[in-house]
Amino acid sequence: MISRMGGNAMKLSARNVLKGTIRSIEIGQVNAEVVLEVAPGLEMTSIITRKSCENLGLKVGKEAYLIVKASNVMIGTE
Amino acid sequence: MISRMGGNAMKLSARNVLKGTIRSIEIGQVNAEVVLEVAPGLEMTSIITRKSCENLGLKVGKEAYLIVKASNVMIGTE
Amino acid sequence: MISRMGGNAMKLSARNVLKGTIRSIEIGQVNAEVVLEVAPGLEMTSIITRKSCENLGLKVGKEAYLIVKASNVMIGTE
Amino acid sequence: MISRMGGNAMKLSARNVLKGTIRSIEIGQVNAEVVLEVAPGLEMTSIITRKSCENLGLKVGKEAYLIVKASNVMIGTE
Amino acid sequence: MISRMGGNAMKLSARNVLKGTIRSIEIGQVNAEVVLEVAPGLEMTSIITRKSCENLGLKVGKEAYLIVKASNVMIGTE
Amino acid sequence: MISRMGGNAMKLSARNVLKGTIRSIEIGQVNAEVVLEVAPGLEMTSIITRKSCENLGLKVGKEAYLIVKASNVMIGTE
Repeated sequence: MISRMGGNAMKLSARNVLKGTIRSIEIGQVNAEVVLEVAPGLEMTSIITRKSCENLGLKVGKEAYLIVKASNVMIGTE
Repeated sequence: MISRMGGNAMKLSARNVLKGTIRSIEIGQVNAEVVLEVAPGLEMTSIITRKSCENLGLKVGKEAYLIVKASNVMIGTE
Repeated sequence: MISRMGGNAMKLSARNVLKGTIRSIEIGQVNAEVVLEVAPGLEMTSIITRKSCENLGLKVGKEAYLIVKASNVMIGTE
Repeated sequence: MISRMGGNAMKLSARNVLKGTIRSIEIGQVNAEVVLEVAPGLEMTSIITRKSCENLGLKVGKEAYLIVKASNVMIGTE
Repeated sequence: MISRMGGNAMKLSARNVLKGTIRSIEIGQVNAEVVLEVAPGLEMTSIITRKSCENLGLKVGKEAYLIVKASNVMIGTE
Repeated sequence: MISRMGGNAMKLSARNVLKGTIRSIEIGQVNAEVVLEVAPGLEMTSIITRKSCENLGLKVGKEAYLIVKASNVMIGTE
């Protein structure tokens, strides 16, 4: 379940690392909103700083990883 | 202490709400770790309080929603 | 993209769900700041995405729930 | 390891700082769950490390502040 | 809306409180990005609301504390 | 400011990535507390899941990266 990114075996403690494709990017003054498709038809949204967005060179259509710490995940039931 | 919000369609500001099936639950003294399968073969992990886990009546095999605020989602690239 | 979960009593693992009245909304390019009064004279502030704010149809004077995961709550003492 | 900041009026960027009374404390190996009453009948729950709980000398009945960063607050509507 | 907590030694449950010097501030409509140098050559970045930034009177060159809850800290290894 | 971990240029959107040395590890049933020294005399604390701690093979004395999303960093002033 540990993410192994790249060929130099980078590992993160974050339990949730999902590979996806960037579907949209919206840039604000300080933050940016990035939407990834992580499974067919399943999109997830991230807010990161505009600078990170630029520095990572994020572009619609590129692959990227979505990373979420387990303590930031809630559960809901009906 | 668990919130029970009305009887109508509930909407959340959280941009990431994924329906899934509970695949494992591990209970500690204060927290619990809950793993959901949100797409075929795609599991995500949540840490919630043990009390919430009990109050929601979470059980392996049951359906549940996984909820993540967009500001808690990071992006990584190779 | 806003989640609409069923027509039944929705339960969340978040331990802090407070009913309140929206007292102010400030919209930015990516995010929005929403202030709720959750008890007489007790206001709390939320930052959500602008899109969530629009999709939820938030308006000053409307009722809404403020939701905080317990692991995001700190304690301070004098 | 607990921060003791000066002897003057301390100000935090956190938009949500609520004075309350500790109503319960539950201690685990790593974390502790602390419940504060922040308004009459309005309780909020915090998960902090056990060490912080001990170092702050938290006890049921004592006053304390509950602190939440606005970006960790979600909104829900019915 | 900024919290001003008493005149005594303030203690926080947050395990990470680092004294630093503000190196840059960038203001958006809702949020602001603040960079602090917390050790020689070691800069850390914070996103807070623009209002908090103004209310705290943050300015480049001033001292400030950087505060992070331990549950929001991840670990990575190579 | 973007972190480049390893030789395969892994990059994260997290604005705060600090290299450090693990100084202590405390294991609970669900979570673990890991302390890193990120600059001489400057320790920071992380709470991750016990499983991540085991899977990453964390040990006192080993090098590791501490990662914090900017939106989870608060500022305080005296």
